[in-house]
Amino acid sequence: MIKTALIQNNITASKAENLSHVKDMISDAVRQGARFVVLPECFQQEYAVKKFADNAEELSKPGMSPTFDMLQASSKGITLVGGSFIERGPDSQLFNTSCTFEDGQLLGVHRKVHLFDVDIPGGIRFKESSVLAPGKEATVVNSELLGMKIGVGVCFDVRFANYAEHLRSSGAKALVYPGAFNLTTGPAHWTLLARARALDNQAYTMLCSPARSPTAAYQAYGHTIAVDPYGVVIGELDDKEGVLMFDMDPAYVDKVRAMIPLEEKRRVW
Amino acid sequence: MIKTALIQNNITASKAENLSHVKDMISDAVRQGARFVVLPECFQQEYAVKKFADNAEELSKPGMSPTFDMLQASSKGITLVGGSFIERGPDSQLFNTSCTFEDGQLLGVHRKVHLFDVDIPGGIRFKESSVLAPGKEATVVNSELLGMKIGVGVCFDVRFANYAEHLRSSGAKALVYPGAFNLTTGPAHWTLLARARALDNQAYTMLCSPARSPTAAYQAYGHTIAVDPYGVVIGELDDKEGVLMFDMDPAYVDKVRAMIPLEEKRRVW
Repeated sequence: MIKTALIQNNITASKAENLSHVKDMISDAVRQGARFVVLPECFQQEYAVKKFADNAEELSKPGMSPTFDMLQASSKGITLVGGSFIERGPDSQLFNTSCTFEDGQLLGVHRKVHLFDVDIPGGIRFKESSVLAPGKEATVVNSELLGMKIGVGVCFDVRFANYAEHLRSSGAKALVYPGAFNLTTGPAHWTLLARARALDNQAYTMLCSPARSPTAAYQAYGHTIAVDPYGVVIGELDDKEGVLMFDMDPAYVDKVRAMIPLEEKRRVW
Repeated sequence: MIKTALIQNNITASKAENLSHVKDMISDAVRQGARFVVLPECFQQEYAVKKFADNAEELSKPGMSPTFDMLQASSKGITLVGGSFIERGPDSQLFNTSCTFEDGQLLGVHRKVHLFDVDIPGGIRFKESSVLAPGKEATVVNSELLGMKIGVGVCFDVRFANYAEHLRSSGAKALVYPGAFNLTTGPAHWTLLARARALDNQAYTMLCSPARSPTAAYQAYGHTIAVDPYGVVIGELDDKEGVLMFDMDPAYVDKVRAMIPLEEKRRVW
């Protein structure tokens, strides 16, 4: 069994405050026995296109990313999917980037592939692609501490079944999506997508959101959720700050895949 | 608007009785204005591996398939996805086959691609592949009467997100799955899969089951369901015989696809 903690933190206007707060939440979860910890999308800043450039950090230069440094330091003895933050790439392009660490080592970097562009009359309008560049790689990390592979996507990536299937075909037994749905698409699609990706791929699936901030321009849906490989919801938070803890059992993945064999029947079209 | 009828019929041990009964149900639906009619998987015989060979019909020889003939005759003036029945192919292989007709013309033949092999301890054990051969083609039919393309799969095909994505990429605005889930996987996965395929592909999605027969060896789940392109359940029957009627609006498909653009962002992995 792998004790897992999905952290749903409050976000303030101060990045330093957010980093320090999340660092404490990770420590608390580890003290309670968590070996696998997941953070939300944009966990250290308000999610707003106009603020992306100001808060962007460069991964390539040591010491230039306080977020990278906090995540690295916090991953001692555990595996940590570090939510996401805005990265300034080598060509000054901005990415929505998720770094996964294990015991101080960087395991993988996922740059959000499918950018969030929606326009729902009476609901939400948002265009990430106006300031962000899309990543080009699918991300599966191999965790030695947990003895399993983990697929990573960020938020809108979860809408693409073929992306998840690719992660599963690459060996992932868990799919992890830091995400920040909103009050329009959250109630409509969040739980459905989590359960769909879990059932299609017979993999533990986690969507990890920031808590709702009633004063922020973008109100995250919250509702951090974990689903088992049979499509059953293990637990789901409300929209307040909190931590969802549960036991992940890699052997159960194998069991479900034996009961309903899908992967060997999958065709390429 | 396209008035659509999903027929969930009772099945008896008599094929002739079932054909006659379903013929009447189609006529009733058409009298009520239905322009698009869908039948269940194996709608004219009990679903049992041992009975497949006895009931198999050859499509290739005119007059050799009473099921084919009934469907063709019943499709006058409408579009009809004729559920499925067991076909004896040219090499005596057996297929689980769905024929779609429009106004007396055969539009497409879908042979179930992903065969139903499951073994759930305490639940159900079933192995279609012990007697059936898998189809090799994806099926999208072009309905002139309805002015839209329709993707077709049979039952277990619905578990494969990449199959549905292929139908959608081929132009389908509706996905139709005659299916007969059981009392184990039905409650667990039926509604979830219908909503997942609808939302992933922003397409009307229909799963059409036989009614539950308490005396049969294989008890179908029933619960014939229709979901709109935003993932919302339009209607769902219980396990008794019945007809689910609803209006399908092809313009709503375009609207949802414009609100949340997915197809143009989809990557090949």
